[in-house]
Amino acid sequence: MPFIQFDGPELTKEKKAELVAKLTQASSEVLEIPEQAFQILIKENSMDNIGAGGKLLSERHQ
Amino acid sequence: MPFIQFDGPELTKEKKAELVAKLTQASSEVLEIPEQAFQILIKENSMDNIGAGGKLLSERHQ
Amino acid sequence: MPFIQFDGPELTKEKKAELVAKLTQASSEVLEIPEQAFQILIKENSMDNIGAGGKLLSERHQ
Amino acid sequence: MPFIQFDGPELTKEKKAELVAKLTQASSEVLEIPEQAFQILIKENSMDNIGAGGKLLSERHQ
Amino acid sequence: MPFIQFDGPELTKEKKAELVAKLTQASSEVLEIPEQAFQILIKENSMDNIGAGGKLLSERHQ
Amino acid sequence: MPFIQFDGPELTKEKKAELVAKLTQASSEVLEIPEQAFQILIKENSMDNIGAGGKLLSERHQ
Repeated sequence: MPFIQFDGPELTKEKKAELVAKLTQASSEVLEIPEQAFQILIKENSMDNIGAGGKLLSERHQ
Repeated sequence: MPFIQFDGPELTKEKKAELVAKLTQASSEVLEIPEQAFQILIKENSMDNIGAGGKLLSERHQ
Repeated sequence: MPFIQFDGPELTKEKKAELVAKLTQASSEVLEIPEQAFQILIKENSMDNIGAGGKLLSERHQ
Repeated sequence: MPFIQFDGPELTKEKKAELVAKLTQASSEVLEIPEQAFQILIKENSMDNIGAGGKLLSERHQ
Repeated sequence: MPFIQFDGPELTKEKKAELVAKLTQASSEVLEIPEQAFQILIKENSMDNIGAGGKLLSERHQ
Repeated sequence: MPFIQFDGPELTKEKKAELVAKLTQASSEVLEIPEQAFQILIKENSMDNIGAGGKLLSERHQ
């Protein structure tokens, strides 16, 4: 605790490591809770599985 | 905002597009919020990863 | 199964009932799965607890 | 209802079936609600997609 | 890691403690991961906020 | 898209605003996606509703 779930696009392992490091550091600073307490789940999603404004992102970006 | 997460079976891209369109339209009508504001995540799950009544769906449907 | 989680603003009981009815009907039609199979969780959120574009919604709407 | 979402590592089908059976039985006993009412989603995650203490689990376990 | 999210009805603190103990023990046995590694979030929901088969639970139980 | 869900303790409105600003900025830098695209949900949880290692946090901190 705390837990962060991040739903975004597919990412390289390097980007995931950078994201986890920066989200943890930022959250730790704001909440004044040690970085050790934070856990993060990265969920990678296809553009076919995300809708915005009634359309799939894979259709909006065509 | 608002956000909808839909956890269901695997779907074709056509079904995903239809689902996003209809869920967004229905939600927009009920909440009287423009369709542009809605975001939807579709999560596809294997029948091996869903349990109901203590059994996997893949076992119940055999 | 399927499950829908709807994260939005605070709603009256009447709006919740209408939302559940319409989301279930729309999903059932698209997936060709009986309405009985669908479960929905409505999560109500304060505008202080939603961020968009780096700002709380309660600040953007001032 | 109730719903349980379990985010963990990749599992065999046998482990999933055992997990669903035991989580359902335990929850049913505590809440005094029939096992039939419980639904469980198992989400399998790569060690590259989980962060703890600012690092990916795939890096911590090296 | 692993993480369990439990969405159910309102519970007493005693029931929450019992639920956390039993879900953790059951999961630890199945996955052969120490109990210390498990984290659980209990989310309490009003019967007005849960839909099943197109109706709110608060309406079905009348 | 992307979406971040942050499950933590109760926070003041000032801390929520700071958290949203910093998580959005950090994520935008790593993913090279404009800040406008990010949405964040902050979920506040009682220590009675979080379990770690088989115990409620409200019991561990006594």
